[in-house]
Amino acid sequence: MSIYLHDIPLEEAQARFAVALVEAGLGERLASESLALDERAAGRVLAEPVWAGLSSPHYHASAMDGFAVRAEDTQGAAPSLPVTLDCPRQAGYLDTGDVLPEWANAVIPIESVEPLDETGAPAPNPRHPERIRIRAAVVPWQHVRPMGEDIVATQLVLPAGWVLRPVDLGAAAASGQTSLNVVKKPRVAIIPTGTELVPVGAPPRPGEIIEYNSLVLAAQVNGWGGEALRLAPLPDDFEQIRAAVLQAARDHDLVLVNAGSSAGSEDFTARVVESLGRVLVHGVAVRPGHPVILGMLRFPGEEAQGRERQVPVIGVPGYPVSAALTGEIFVKPLIERWLGVPHSEPDTLRATLTRKVTSPAGDDDFLRVVLGRVGERLLAAPLARGAGVITSLVQADGITLLPRGSQGAPAGAEVEVHLYKPRSEIERTIFAIGSHDISLDLMAQFLAPRGRRLVSANVGSLGGLVALRRAEAHLGGCHLLDERTGEYNQAYIREYLPETRLKLVTLVGRQQGLLLPPGNPLNIRSLEDLVRPEVTFVNRQRGAGTRLLLDYHLRLLGIVPERLKGYNQEEYTHLAVAAAVASGRASCGLGIAAAARALGLEFLPLYEERYDLAILEEYYSSALLAPLLELLQETAFRSAVAGLPGYDIRRMGELVAEF
Amino acid sequence: MSIYLHDIPLEEAQARFAVALVEAGLGERLASESLALDERAAGRVLAEPVWAGLSSPHYHASAMDGFAVRAEDTQGAAPSLPVTLDCPRQAGYLDTGDVLPEWANAVIPIESVEPLDETGAPAPNPRHPERIRIRAAVVPWQHVRPMGEDIVATQLVLPAGWVLRPVDLGAAAASGQTSLNVVKKPRVAIIPTGTELVPVGAPPRPGEIIEYNSLVLAAQVNGWGGEALRLAPLPDDFEQIRAAVLQAARDHDLVLVNAGSSAGSEDFTARVVESLGRVLVHGVAVRPGHPVILGMLRFPGEEAQGRERQVPVIGVPGYPVSAALTGEIFVKPLIERWLGVPHSEPDTLRATLTRKVTSPAGDDDFLRVVLGRVGERLLAAPLARGAGVITSLVQADGITLLPRGSQGAPAGAEVEVHLYKPRSEIERTIFAIGSHDISLDLMAQFLAPRGRRLVSANVGSLGGLVALRRAEAHLGGCHLLDERTGEYNQAYIREYLPETRLKLVTLVGRQQGLLLPPGNPLNIRSLEDLVRPEVTFVNRQRGAGTRLLLDYHLRLLGIVPERLKGYNQEEYTHLAVAAAVASGRASCGLGIAAAARALGLEFLPLYEERYDLAILEEYYSSALLAPLLELLQETAFRSAVAGLPGYDIRRMGELVAEF
Repeated sequence: MSIYLHDIPLEEAQARFAVALVEAGLGERLASESLALDERAAGRVLAEPVWAGLSSPHYHASAMDGFAVRAEDTQGAAPSLPVTLDCPRQAGYLDTGDVLPEWANAVIPIESVEPLDETGAPAPNPRHPERIRIRAAVVPWQHVRPMGEDIVATQLVLPAGWVLRPVDLGAAAASGQTSLNVVKKPRVAIIPTGTELVPVGAPPRPGEIIEYNSLVLAAQVNGWGGEALRLAPLPDDFEQIRAAVLQAARDHDLVLVNAGSSAGSEDFTARVVESLGRVLVHGVAVRPGHPVILGMLRFPGEEAQGRERQVPVIGVPGYPVSAALTGEIFVKPLIERWLGVPHSEPDTLRATLTRKVTSPAGDDDFLRVVLGRVGERLLAAPLARGAGVITSLVQADGITLLPRGSQGAPAGAEVEVHLYKPRSEIERTIFAIGSHDISLDLMAQFLAPRGRRLVSANVGSLGGLVALRRAEAHLGGCHLLDERTGEYNQAYIREYLPETRLKLVTLVGRQQGLLLPPGNPLNIRSLEDLVRPEVTFVNRQRGAGTRLLLDYHLRLLGIVPERLKGYNQEEYTHLAVAAAVASGRASCGLGIAAAARALGLEFLPLYEERYDLAILEEYYSSALLAPLLELLQETAFRSAVAGLPGYDIRRMGELVAEF
Repeated sequence: MSIYLHDIPLEEAQARFAVALVEAGLGERLASESLALDERAAGRVLAEPVWAGLSSPHYHASAMDGFAVRAEDTQGAAPSLPVTLDCPRQAGYLDTGDVLPEWANAVIPIESVEPLDETGAPAPNPRHPERIRIRAAVVPWQHVRPMGEDIVATQLVLPAGWVLRPVDLGAAAASGQTSLNVVKKPRVAIIPTGTELVPVGAPPRPGEIIEYNSLVLAAQVNGWGGEALRLAPLPDDFEQIRAAVLQAARDHDLVLVNAGSSAGSEDFTARVVESLGRVLVHGVAVRPGHPVILGMLRFPGEEAQGRERQVPVIGVPGYPVSAALTGEIFVKPLIERWLGVPHSEPDTLRATLTRKVTSPAGDDDFLRVVLGRVGERLLAAPLARGAGVITSLVQADGITLLPRGSQGAPAGAEVEVHLYKPRSEIERTIFAIGSHDISLDLMAQFLAPRGRRLVSANVGSLGGLVALRRAEAHLGGCHLLDERTGEYNQAYIREYLPETRLKLVTLVGRQQGLLLPPGNPLNIRSLEDLVRPEVTFVNRQRGAGTRLLLDYHLRLLGIVPERLKGYNQEEYTHLAVAAAVASGRASCGLGIAAAARALGLEFLPLYEERYDLAILEEYYSSALLAPLLELLQETAFRSAVAGLPGYDIRRMGELVAEF
């Protein structure tokens, strides 16, 4: 049996799967079950329409606290011409909701009535007077809720396929229901496979991977209205996987096998599916996610609804972003179909891409983006593309599809973004672009309870200034040393943003130095040591302030940068540089003390630098940015930053210059 | 102790409540609890930031199935200049995810490699060759996922206050978490009060009311992230209610008492709150909903977090729409505050009001509307205003606030609508306005699985034509008898819509007749009997086809309409007329057989009439309406309509005329 992976277009894959489901009799809504009408029915889907068994109100009810009367008896009453009605013959007190007596046809609110005793004086108990005096006539049915005002018995209250919200439960109860027929939840078994997998909770050794795709898939399934069962991870063993799939198919509507869906030596999913039924699709032209398997397990001799029993199976790719997208693309529509609800398309927005993106020509490319409004423009900044970077999905505000054949999109292109977050969240986003600093992470946390979201794109100090020139962010963090003046940032702003009005505010002073493995095994003591042949450096990307700092001091020392091994090995954040050193991939890097401390590295301080925020003038006084500027004066935030190693907050919030 | 209800503006009420909460030390996020990291954590709110305990990947991992190599060893390789590497000294096979050996710094995918045996022939096992031949050089770190590519140990993975989605659980697991500190769910006790209440499941007698507000409130609370407990309904008894409130306050963060929140004789909520603490607000100037109580229960001598223990209490009004809105206005913000999540504002749209709305001058008026796009315009049609009409919340696509002082809004006004439904649902809405027919309810059900939503505003046949003239709907149902020709609808369309291009398509033929109580106690046999003094008629509203039919035949008989008692008593649908007869409010009405059958009435057939759909030309061939027109030819739909009593489907779908 030979298994090949052959990517086909997404729509073709979906169509093949849909046809096979319909042929197997699995294309329709699942069976129903009866559920007691209580709050746990919220979110379930009605399998049948709800017809009113009862009117609401189911009798003529008083709509006010007041007196039931006959409208005819009130005729002629006027402020100067009061009419007196006898109790209980012509008027009787009712609380709101009480039954209107047969003889009455209207209610007068108690505050419009003078309750009297037998002598004509105010009645001691205004609700049980001898008579009442009124000074206005009323029309029939005034302040009466007639039977059926809300619901008329036999009317349609809720249609089949309706997703029950709290008020719907109320309407169903009002119409006399005591239980509801809802669609059964689609049961989905999730089988993680891979000898390298360890469950959440077991500390992984090198080569071992924490199994969390089943966690993501299960939470997705439950959130879409299904019922997920996670099985324990299985090793890459054909027989064990086959047995588990067979067992899971006994009492589930769908089986997900994760991963082993590619065509490698240890990829058994396709072979297991072949052995138990048929593979419909092996490989879909989407990124991330292409090694998807769609198949049907067959059970000859067993019947379900008059046909051979079949159970669909999806081989879900192993990379976490691929797995989550496979859930959205293939599992969600299937659950919706089985629940009988329309496919819920996420809300979309059109936004402008902040940078060029290249896609493989043959694939539908799903690009994760963060969104922010800067002035009139809604901007979409692409996130990390790798299928292994689940944080790109965590950070994403939405996803945009670059269709196959397009090979990507240029900077400035308008793209349609399917939103993961509500629009209101986008509107309260402060978009920062530039150099990364750990205090920005702290700032994001402090801003969240103040109704602001701080999104930082880390492109280095110069990259941030260039973006500010194009008005692609509200502000940028920068620490750019001017080699002539020794001043920070101002010279660069004058050069790169001559036409842009902005304010420069200091965030922190911080130490830069060399990040070194514990014990400093290569005994590195200065920049000069970086040229030693046994030293491998890890650098920051072009435009990063830290790289400029390095270049400046290398020049002072007369060292040609190319003499540093690893000078072209680039990372985008301080922590990434620290990670490279911690892992042994490099013997040292230049960065901040906090990053060294974070990963247990040694830190050799070399320079103190100033890190400023360059804020576009038009947003400096905006309501959007106000909480951020206030934060710079607040003790709690200042203390938190001061607690970071190597940080100096004395100049925090100082307005350095205006341009 | 005297209790007065004194409405204050909404913002003032919210401010008083907020101040009291803060004073009581209850203005902050609730305490946290530790939760195992599994799929049940989805939807919970992080009480603390998640910092990475582990990098992901936590080692340098192969990103492909292929061979680990040193990039240096591949230098110079080209298609015509292959390089051969010895195994395992210079190259070793890795599956995706395997640890990159210390000596290697790149991976070549297996499909780019020629695995050879010792003779130079293709290796029998391509994953364990003696050597490999390559024809391209690689750069360092190609096809390697470096340690920390996704997550660097110690970095911020998720901030405090984050609402956990499926991918967030994955990221937390990837960063080495095994449990999460989440905010405790706010516990909310709901105490229904009212001697007239019966629980869901008990058939109510006249004067009894099914208690379902607690169901709606509980489902709301759970949906917003709280944990609701519904107590059994209590009678209107001060001591019993007081004891229940006291008991509930022991182990809940919030107590809701429903209802008894007004100032009537049986309204005990305010007195109970006064006796256990203090009433902050009694009466808020909002409609529906004004008799709201906001209070704080105090427990002198008991401490919580170093202060006197206090528990907030809300007296929720009894009308169901008021209760649901009180949940949205007061309970939801409190739960959000306690969870530490930002107040989630619903998405909004601007729409044009289809008719004038009048509001009390002093109140913020919350108007429920249905929405539909007709051409370029987004239209908002107001729904029933009554606080007792829960179906208005069921049908509502959104809610719009007419601020106090405005006294409403004119037809054509642009209003901001807070959406209850996704925008996509609005866009697939077919807007029908005109006469109501039961087959439209069936049509709505058949259209739902076809991705269309049929929203019908029932304003009568003529009202529908007038709305079509203003392009305020896609189509309208009408059954307007022309007294000169005996033809239906065409003459009216020519007269009322001379400039409008539309198509007239027959939906059904149906019988109109008199709806009578079972046994026809007044022995009504013809229209002439309606003038008898003991007969009370219930009429349809002006412009209704059924009313025109009545007027036409009264004129033929020479009967002046004013001679009918109840001629001015108007209902808006056939079922409402039937309900009026069934309840004894009227002795007969004119309507369709289906309505009589629905409520067990007698039906005296008088006339057969044609009910058509007038469809605006520009939508007749639109994708939006296509499923509706197809339906008219489908057997399943036709059979369903034919099954209605008094219906004739022979001309269904016939194009009667084009204008």
